This record gives sequence, C-alpha cells and structure tokens, in this order.
Amino acid sequence: MTRKELIHQIFSKQSFLCVGLDTDIKKIPQHLLTEDDPMFSFNKQIIDATAPYCVAYKPNLAFYESLGVKGIQAFEHTVNYLKKYYPTHFIIADAKRGDIGNTSAMYARTFFEEYDVDSLTVAPYMGEDSIKPFLGYDGHWVILLALTSNKGSQDFQLTADDNGERLFERVLRISQQWGNDENMMYVVGATQGRMFEDIRRMAPTHFLLVPGVGAQGGSLQEVCRYGMTEECGLLVNSSRGIIYAGNDENFAEVAAQKAKELQAEMAQELKKYCKA
Amino acid sequence: MTRKELIHQIFSKQSFLCVGLDTDIKKIPQHLLTEDDPMFSFNKQIIDATAPYCVAYKPNLAFYESLGVKGIQAFEHTVNYLKKYYPTHFIIADAKRGDIGNTSAMYARTFFEEYDVDSLTVAPYMGEDSIKPFLGYDGHWVILLALTSNKGSQDFQLTADDNGERLFERVLRISQQWGNDENMMYVVGATQGRMFEDIRRMAPTHFLLVPGVGAQGGSLQEVCRYGMTEECGLLVNSSRGIIYAGNDENFAEVAAQKAKELQAEMAQELKKYCKA
Repeated sequence: MTRKELIHQIFSKQSFLCVGLDTDIKKIPQHLLTEDDPMFSFNKQIIDATAPYCVAYKPNLAFYESLGVKGIQAFEHTVNYLKKYYPTHFIIADAKRGDIGNTSAMYARTFFEEYDVDSLTVAPYMGEDSIKPFLGYDGHWVILLALTSNKGSQDFQLTADDNGERLFERVLRISQQWGNDENMMYVVGATQGRMFEDIRRMAPTHFLLVPGVGAQGGSLQEVCRYGMTEECGLLVNSSRGIIYAGNDENFAEVAAQKAKELQAEMAQELKKYCKA
Repeated sequence: MTRKELIHQIFSKQSFLCVGLDTDIKKIPQHLLTEDDPMFSFNKQIIDATAPYCVAYKPNLAFYESLGVKGIQAFEHTVNYLKKYYPTHFIIADAKRGDIGNTSAMYARTFFEEYDVDSLTVAPYMGEDSIKPFLGYDGHWVILLALTSNKGSQDFQLTADDNGERLFERVLRISQQWGNDENMMYVVGATQGRMFEDIRRMAPTHFLLVPGVGAQGGSLQEVCRYGMTEECGLLVNSSRGIIYAGNDENFAEVAAQKAKELQAEMAQELKKYCKA
C-alpha cells in the first residue's frame, strides 16, 4: 500500500487504529479450542468485527511461532484472509527482524514476496546492509525500531554520543539516508510522551507506528498532541486492550466496541490537528 | 548444555567449529529436490558428515521461514534429529529476536521449551526487559549481538558516548548486570580483527560466537590471537564455506573435508593458547 492510499484510508475511516493480533492460544476463549485452527478462527472473528474501525492489522510473529507449524499456518491463513476480504487494510508483520545483508534479503523475500504483507518491523542494530534489502519493494515498508515503549528502551536508545545525539536520533538521521517517508516508518512507543516532539524535529513527515496505548499505559491524546502531522502520520496500535477485552462467546462484539471507542477518540484528534 | 559441558566437548574434539545451517532451497543440490523434505535431507547429510569435526550447529531461521510451513517443518526435523542422534552438539537458533517483555517471554518459551535448543541469538536494541526472559532457563543461553561481522556494524555499534564508551561496549557492560558467562554469549564478527582485544577487556571469560570466517573474509588465526581464552571461549561459525563447498551428489563428503580442515586449524590454535 502506498503512502497516499494509507492516508486516504485514514481520513475516509476517521481512524488511524492498528489492531494488534497478539493471538495467544492460552488466552483465547475456550470454545474456540475445538476448531481446526483456533488462532485463525479467533483472528477471523476479531477482524470481521473490528475492520470498520481500524486501518491496519499487526500480527505479532512471536505468538504464531510459539505453535510451530500450526502457528505459521494460522499466520498464513490470517494474512490470506486479510488480503482477500480486506485489501484496503494495511498489514504489519511484527517480527523485529534484521541480519547481515544476504539474510535480510531472505527475510524481505519471505515477507514481501511470499506473504506479500505491506510492512515488517526491523531492528536497526546491524545498520545499513541489514535494512536496505527491505527497501527495494514498491508499496512495501520497513518499520524501524526507534524509541520503543518498554522500560528497556532506556538502556541503549537514549545514550547520547559526544555531540549530544541520542542513539534513537542517530537511527532516525542515518536511516533517512537509506529510505524515505514512502517506504520507511518508525516505531515510537506511546509511553514516550513529549519525546514525540524530538522525533518530529528529525522525522517531520514519516509515519510512526505507536504501540503502548492501553495495556502499557500510553495516552492517545498526548501522542497526538506531540506526534500528529497534518497528514496524520500515526498508526496507533492496541493489542491486548481490544482483542482480550471480552473472553466468552461475545468476545468479537466486545472487541468491536473497544475499537469503536478508540476510533471515536481518534476522529476527535484528527479534527483537532489535521486539515483534510 | 552447561558451560562446563561445552568446554569439555571443545577439548575432547579439539574443535570449536560451529556449522551454520543456512540451508537455501535454491542452493542445495538438485537431486535432493525430489525428496519429501529437501532441506532436512540436505541438513541430515551435512550433519552426519561434519559431526566429528564440530561442536555446534546453527540453523539460520531466515532460510527456514522463507518456505513457510514446509520450512518450519524442516527446522523442527533438523532440531529433533540433532537432539536424538547428536545430543552432545550445541544448537544455536540464529533468529536475532528481541521484543518487549511479554513477547520475548513468548519467544523464550518457543525456543527453550518447545524446541529446547541450547541457545538463541538476540538483538540488544530494546534493552533489559527484552533480554531477561531468556535468562531464566538452566543450561540455555542468550547470544547477544555485540559487534557484528557486516559493514553496517559501523553505523550504530561503534558510536561512542560522551565518556568514549562505544555502543557495543555499553552492550557488553550493561548486559553483564543481567546475565553471566554461564547463560550469555556475545556475537562478535571475525572481520573485526584487533577489536577482539577490546571485547576481551570487557568480557574476559564469556564465550563469543564468531561468524564471518570464510565467505565474509575473517581470519581464524587473527580471531584466536586476540579473542581466545584459556578455556577457548570461542565458537567460530562457518556456513556457506562448508555447506555449499560441493554441489553434486558428493556434497556431504566435500563439506566434511572443509570442516575437517577447519578443525585441524582449530586444534593448532587450541595448542597455542590453551592449557587444557
């Protein structure tokens, strides 16, 4: 999906919500466990119920890999279902990959040719040749970790060099030599508050994927105050707060209700900060 | 596998060779493609042929994931085969994972409980809570990226803070607050030459996993001169230089020959630098 199409989806739906499919076989409602592919059955119902309120889905690979072959099948079924029935929803494979060039090229082929998802999260530690193989695919995106939502983000990402540039700022600056706002986004945690101002100084137009609203405690309003651009520029993710809001036969309705509430808040924020 | 057992294996085999199973369906000999599971058939023959000369195997997950379900089956078959027939070989899942705490915990369960491999490579960018979930498993190891073998290692890993401490040094220092030389190793590329001296100042006893000998151009002798300890402290990996040395029906014999040559060089290095 191109940047233009993504922005169009956001303004027509009045939502920049990404629903995180952190589908944990131990947490899904019991009655699904008798199905052939319980993870996919869960995802399918979540997707059907929440699609009107979100613009993106983000399956987290850790949860699928944990079931080995069955989990990978559930991931494939989920991606195929989205591509067939919801082709205007943006798909993020949350895998946090990144390796030497020939290995990153292999991951790029897997995710952008075989699965053909729109985007993949990638860790920047290994530098240029670990990122570039993902940038050669039109309409496909690298989502690079910049300033993450977790406590451990303080261990390395905030370390300043002798010019006062912090590691996440260096990642933002250097990576813009490799890609642009048509093929690269950044992960910035909702828990980072006013740090979004610093991010926007260095990446004024890039989309940011923002996890950490909900279970992790970030504030949607604060993220928008400091991080939103005229073209929105945000995909805000909620996983556990939506998909596990209910835990019995009506789980999908409860998830839809949560997604709808977030969408309504998002519409308010778009009205405040965006012209379109 | 414990540190003590690993050291015992190294000195009894006079080898610290790790064979990288970067098994690419497009590169394996044609005659294997008619088999049920060509990747596993390839691995099985490589393992049977090289086992006398190495102490570890390192399947690179990128190559298995590229085939979706079939690739994950090949990975599982390979791990199960190693555990059944070569239980004294150390298994490294080269996956370069790392995510927020609850997701890293999921990866830890997958690799250390379900697959029960000895170790997993992990990227440090997300800090403490992305690493700690891997450290609670006796006889299992995190192998943390420190100073990698690729050109991109210069983009972020060498950046010095205002005290002159470079990022890879900060990773070495801070991570030793979380783990120790019984449950943590570091990735240091063979192409880094004398930088092994700097590594050893900060991590004098930790095992280092050293890729980059062979196809990437690193020198075994240089790595040993600057990086070897009295207990060896090195696992040196070769992937393409061994597994694709031959490309027809006798590929396994050719791989064994390459592994044997490396083992003989390693025995010389052990004699030079180790007491045992």
